[in-house]
Amino acid sequence: MSDISTNPPIGMRDFLAKDMIKREYVVNKIKEVFERFGFDPWETPAVERLEVLQGKYGEEEKLIYKFQDLGGRWLALRYDLTVPLARVVARFPQLPKPIKRYQISRVWRYERKQKGRYKEFWQCDVDIVGSSRMIADAEIVSIVYKVLKKLGFEEFNIRINNRKILSAIVRISGVDKSKVLDAFRSIDKLDKVGIEGVRKELKARGIKDDSVEKLVEFISIKGNAERVLSEVESLVKKDEEGLKGVEELKELLSYLPDFRVKKGFYSVDLSLVRGLDYYTGPIFETVVTKPKIGSISGGGRYDNLISLFAGTRIPAVGVSFGLERIIDVMEELNMIKTPQTKTDVFVACVEESLIKNAIKICDFLRENGVNCQMDLMGRKLSKQLEYVDSKGIPYAVIIGKAEVEKGLVKLKDMKTRSEELLKLEDVPKKIKV
Amino acid sequence: MSDISTNPPIGMRDFLAKDMIKREYVVNKIKEVFERFGFDPWETPAVERLEVLQGKYGEEEKLIYKFQDLGGRWLALRYDLTVPLARVVARFPQLPKPIKRYQISRVWRYERKQKGRYKEFWQCDVDIVGSSRMIADAEIVSIVYKVLKKLGFEEFNIRINNRKILSAIVRISGVDKSKVLDAFRSIDKLDKVGIEGVRKELKARGIKDDSVEKLVEFISIKGNAERVLSEVESLVKKDEEGLKGVEELKELLSYLPDFRVKKGFYSVDLSLVRGLDYYTGPIFETVVTKPKIGSISGGGRYDNLISLFAGTRIPAVGVSFGLERIIDVMEELNMIKTPQTKTDVFVACVEESLIKNAIKICDFLRENGVNCQMDLMGRKLSKQLEYVDSKGIPYAVIIGKAEVEKGLVKLKDMKTRSEELLKLEDVPKKIKV
Repeated sequence: MSDISTNPPIGMRDFLAKDMIKREYVVNKIKEVFERFGFDPWETPAVERLEVLQGKYGEEEKLIYKFQDLGGRWLALRYDLTVPLARVVARFPQLPKPIKRYQISRVWRYERKQKGRYKEFWQCDVDIVGSSRMIADAEIVSIVYKVLKKLGFEEFNIRINNRKILSAIVRISGVDKSKVLDAFRSIDKLDKVGIEGVRKELKARGIKDDSVEKLVEFISIKGNAERVLSEVESLVKKDEEGLKGVEELKELLSYLPDFRVKKGFYSVDLSLVRGLDYYTGPIFETVVTKPKIGSISGGGRYDNLISLFAGTRIPAVGVSFGLERIIDVMEELNMIKTPQTKTDVFVACVEESLIKNAIKICDFLRENGVNCQMDLMGRKLSKQLEYVDSKGIPYAVIIGKAEVEKGLVKLKDMKTRSEELLKLEDVPKKIKV
Repeated sequence: MSDISTNPPIGMRDFLAKDMIKREYVVNKIKEVFERFGFDPWETPAVERLEVLQGKYGEEEKLIYKFQDLGGRWLALRYDLTVPLARVVARFPQLPKPIKRYQISRVWRYERKQKGRYKEFWQCDVDIVGSSRMIADAEIVSIVYKVLKKLGFEEFNIRINNRKILSAIVRISGVDKSKVLDAFRSIDKLDKVGIEGVRKELKARGIKDDSVEKLVEFISIKGNAERVLSEVESLVKKDEEGLKGVEELKELLSYLPDFRVKKGFYSVDLSLVRGLDYYTGPIFETVVTKPKIGSISGGGRYDNLISLFAGTRIPAVGVSFGLERIIDVMEELNMIKTPQTKTDVFVACVEESLIKNAIKICDFLRENGVNCQMDLMGRKLSKQLEYVDSKGIPYAVIIGKAEVEKGLVKLKDMKTRSEELLKLEDVPKKIKV
């Protein structure tokens, strides 16, 4: 017996058939919506040069999965799909704008071992590059809505804020410039620690009482999106950037009815911050309200990120869905009803001498669009049928000598256990109901 | 301007829309055949513990893309999809056998920079685990045939050999035990260096003249598969393993007509060796004869590999398709006719005030299965249509105030440049011809 562990590396996972079929189901629905909106797929390497990733993620940068290759070069497994996108956009300046690309692929984080935290996981990203107009941001918000509806979610909230408003709020509250990020980080915790917690945290980070109260006043503004925006507007009216942020969100929201994004599925939430450093305008985060789980999607506008590679300013906006989070919620709500296997039919032989007949029958079924397999182990019929059950294959075609001579097969529905004698030609229609 | 290079790491590639659409086209066809044969998808991490990969690949082991993580653990980007499969099979001993799984995913090699050699590339693997019967090997050969036919290949040769026959040949030729691998490696070069080259190489590696001549005699046996096998049979008749190898191939070949694998698409080729250490029985390699390019698919039976992890012997057979190689050949033969983009329609506005009408029209088209996009940059109509052309979008729906009021749109076929006024409801059928 070998003493090599058969486990994958810590924080990484093997996916067998049942899980993969679930994942494909979800990915295909997401992909379908992305393509409906005119996005095309891109793919980038798993590995990036470390310098490409550094200086983009703020505090989170410590989670970059970096390593030296055998030539001593510092590389990293990509941390997200956004920074590689920015690199590629800069690499091909001649691409017509806007670029509408999606990418569904893995990313890595050098996370400590922790429940629900993976070192390797999947993101589904969709981005519009080259447009600074709010119609692009509205489209991204609509995609979030359509994806979640398509997946069958009935209760969720797309929280929307604007980094420009956040900056204005902090400025108007008189927070010292050196404390701006501290203020953001404290506000970001509202969901977890409540308003009193935020107040405490702001003070602990050395922000003046006066400023703390103003900040708390801002982030306590509640109500429907329009009401929140008009309250903010009156509070930031002397701050040019703040006003611009309000106008952006107003325009963004004005498009949503035409996309048929329903009220009640989004809100303007002044406490939404988003961790990443590179956002410059509207930001979004989606929470499923039932069951209450963290964010399953997040994104926003990042008008300055690409210039770090391209030299010139190329505005962009996008959103990322966390595949694992979505699947976790969907499983909890029993929203995924995929089969255990992609095989439709198992062709079982009553006696081994019929093996060539079985091959021919499989060949016929496959030609007619049926996924099928046959016994490859010379087993008795009862063992073959045990296998069919254990694999969750819905049908068995059972062949004996007598039937074969008449061109007939016995079709067994493994769920109802009912059997039926019919012509081989009729099997494909029969099972594709 | 940034001085960070926008290139991907050396030996790795970015794929934009046009390439991705080609890759997806090929992958979907391969996937379809795999699923028809009753295989289910699995996925494993990109990263494996180094010890899992070591000692499996023979001479090629030096190409493992290994690194130390920040905790000092030796890890590697996976070298292939077979060894991870073996690990997972051992990890889940309770899985019903046979396991029929496919995996289409990336692998990495620490290759020197060289044309056509990548550090990151894609493999499409299909394996049957748990059966030692030749029906399984025949199924794998049939899959190779069906995949290549499905992709549209008309001329290819599935070369088949058996490691048992190779061992017998070397033994019977009197090659010293210490030189067995040397003999294999020399024989493997027949395609590249010809029979004289092999003779020279065998001698240079210190194999006796007498043995060299016997080996050359063996590998010079040509003709149809049955004739080659009967000649080998008479030559190895005193070697039990050799005879077993011949019988295996005879049985394997006997199933191929029932799978409708046509003669002329496979051959028994005694000079086929395959580099990897872990093969124990039949081995396969497929070459496209026109254009003459290296192997696009290779595999074989590996009955001892899984036991390195599992302790017990679990037989297995499988094959791997090299995605890049296949695409290269198909492009050379102009076999891929995929569009540049997945977008079917661009909705263009004559004036910006119609933006909300455009959103509604897009929403209608999307609901009806049409992939579409609209202007997100406030451009003039002429600029919008330039974009449509540059992206290769086949249709534009052009809306002006007068048409919108009548519920009509102008549909422009971007290829023929013809325009037609029609009801919005009629657009989906019109373009889905």
